[in-house]
Amino acid sequence: MAEWLLKRDGLPSHPDRIYLTDGASPALRLSLQLLIRGTGFRDGILVPIPQYPLYSASIALLGGILIPYELDEANDWGLSIENVQRAVDKARADFICPRAVVFINPGNPTGQQLSEEQILGLLQVCHKEQLCLLADEVYQDNVYGKARPFISARSVLAKAGGKLLQEVQLLTFHTVSKGALGECGLRGGMVEVMNVPPDVEAQMYKLASINLSPNVTGQIAMGVMVKPPVPGDESYGQWTKERAAVLSSLGRRAAAITDALNKLPGMHCVDAGSLYAFPSITLPPAAIAAAKAADVAPDVFYCLALLDATGIATTPGSGFGQKDGTYHFRTTILPPESKLTAFCDSIRDFHLDFMKKYSGPVPTEIVVKSPTLAAKL
Amino acid sequence: MAEWLLKRDGLPSHPDRIYLTDGASPALRLSLQLLIRGTGFRDGILVPIPQYPLYSASIALLGGILIPYELDEANDWGLSIENVQRAVDKARADFICPRAVVFINPGNPTGQQLSEEQILGLLQVCHKEQLCLLADEVYQDNVYGKARPFISARSVLAKAGGKLLQEVQLLTFHTVSKGALGECGLRGGMVEVMNVPPDVEAQMYKLASINLSPNVTGQIAMGVMVKPPVPGDESYGQWTKERAAVLSSLGRRAAAITDALNKLPGMHCVDAGSLYAFPSITLPPAAIAAAKAADVAPDVFYCLALLDATGIATTPGSGFGQKDGTYHFRTTILPPESKLTAFCDSIRDFHLDFMKKYSGPVPTEIVVKSPTLAAKL
Repeated sequence: MAEWLLKRDGLPSHPDRIYLTDGASPALRLSLQLLIRGTGFRDGILVPIPQYPLYSASIALLGGILIPYELDEANDWGLSIENVQRAVDKARADFICPRAVVFINPGNPTGQQLSEEQILGLLQVCHKEQLCLLADEVYQDNVYGKARPFISARSVLAKAGGKLLQEVQLLTFHTVSKGALGECGLRGGMVEVMNVPPDVEAQMYKLASINLSPNVTGQIAMGVMVKPPVPGDESYGQWTKERAAVLSSLGRRAAAITDALNKLPGMHCVDAGSLYAFPSITLPPAAIAAAKAADVAPDVFYCLALLDATGIATTPGSGFGQKDGTYHFRTTILPPESKLTAFCDSIRDFHLDFMKKYSGPVPTEIVVKSPTLAAKL
Repeated sequence: MAEWLLKRDGLPSHPDRIYLTDGASPALRLSLQLLIRGTGFRDGILVPIPQYPLYSASIALLGGILIPYELDEANDWGLSIENVQRAVDKARADFICPRAVVFINPGNPTGQQLSEEQILGLLQVCHKEQLCLLADEVYQDNVYGKARPFISARSVLAKAGGKLLQEVQLLTFHTVSKGALGECGLRGGMVEVMNVPPDVEAQMYKLASINLSPNVTGQIAMGVMVKPPVPGDESYGQWTKERAAVLSSLGRRAAAITDALNKLPGMHCVDAGSLYAFPSITLPPAAIAAAKAADVAPDVFYCLALLDATGIATTPGSGFGQKDGTYHFRTTILPPESKLTAFCDSIRDFHLDFMKKYSGPVPTEIVVKSPTLAAKL
């Protein structure tokens, strides 16, 4: 892993600073456990909104406070350093003690890539405010089509040099679950720590050691991931071909789903990336009223109706956090290409029906017809 | 898993009450997380002494208090219900709120099997004192030689019936790491819960769901473990043969190591069981003084000297907890049979040297010669 990090970023690592874990989730939990001192301390972790729910759940469980900073949908879900700084200032004003900033690059659920300038800005804010930077870079290999290339936080740190390189506490996460490998079921992950004081590292080592037995298959998969075949190896040709096929298929699927969603009235989708599309839906007032009557969030109402009508399971935006008054859902771009047209057509037919059904004025009485909702009520 | 539990205990289970985890350790941590409300509540968990350090570490981490109850070495590391009751009473007198009792059967590091009477006694204490019972039964297949057969807590509960069966909150743990399978590196484990209130189960489900992706290889291994080949299956013959060979080899190794250790002066070893021998050592005063001068516990001193002299790594008893003034170490019984004589001879030669070296009066000045200790000092 250390060799791979050196090669990727031009910045040395060391095996002692790398923890192998059962997927990236336990690596993140391990890190949050070190950062959050427990209920009563009001320790805060800055997390992008929309975010991956692992963060909100783990922070709550550890007695921490989630400090949100909003990504800008109008700017391709871009990250604004001003938003991050404002969130830090507001947290301090609220007597919260900010401890770390999480960023997800490429984004989940939003799929965007950060620019070098944005990452440098994050490193500078973290240095100035004495915050640890958690680089969730698990989708780094899921970059395709016309997307901006992935840039690692470590490589920006290497380029920045000086005080930043010597002092910013940077934690880098990766996993075998994503990329062309996509082996979620093998549970291989890692975190590499930089500039963490030796006594904190000692605690991290102790925490990581409570489980005595490592997950061997996950570790093997991590090894395979960071040491792929090189030219001259017997399997190089096949590996190159398979990897390119997976990634170009993901690229075609991302483009097809983005295009299909953007054709629908009231729906807008920033280019799909990572493994996801995260379109916004402008829901008609009657739909919002119907959701209210059913005692669920409007985007949950939409997603359940979609599930009932088509069998397609999506995740409501409220599970990730979204700007007040906006509604989204997340769908993966993983349906096989042979089923993609049918998939997009199903969503279209449902969506047009749904929008028509709720196009009228807000009714005085709502009849709940969804079996899923009926069961819930 | 539910079918296997029914077959093993004559007591039905249900898939909804079974959580598959990445080994038994995460299952135990999940359960302790539900039981311990956090720092400030003084929630206590009763744990046998000697214990497996996973318990002390996890309880400390969650802000709980470990309530020790001592096993009786003179009685084959037997469990005394009076000791458990006394520990509960003392904890309450100390304003600790006991929440659960852990037992390890077969024992780790002590290797003993509990009797039906002892398990029934535990169930009765738990019922009377409103405590949850955590049945760490991960070594259930490691029973060999003249050892008492393994009896599960669920089977005793089934036999007891009545209020006990309806009301005792019993959590049962198992794993693929031990037994004849011995697949620690696949990370397959489980916990089955009985009589846990629905709102607690809902929290357990939520906690278990923070990680979205399961460990597929571990789950497959669990499936293989609980559904072994049956007569008529093609692989039945080979499976029976391999399993019997592993277990009878473990039995021979346990007997050989127990016998060899019991021949040494100042050493006493209850029959080895599970995967371990846990002999007591009566250390001479000069050795205890030398340990004190080196600023380590006497059993740590002994184990480091053994490591330096022979390359054999053992775990000092102080890592597991032991009665004040007694010293132990844990060794596995896992050296291959071809190396067993050499293994026992190495320990014997070292032990005789060590006892001779420290047989004199307590010296006034200690010269530390161990490279491991010298590095430490």
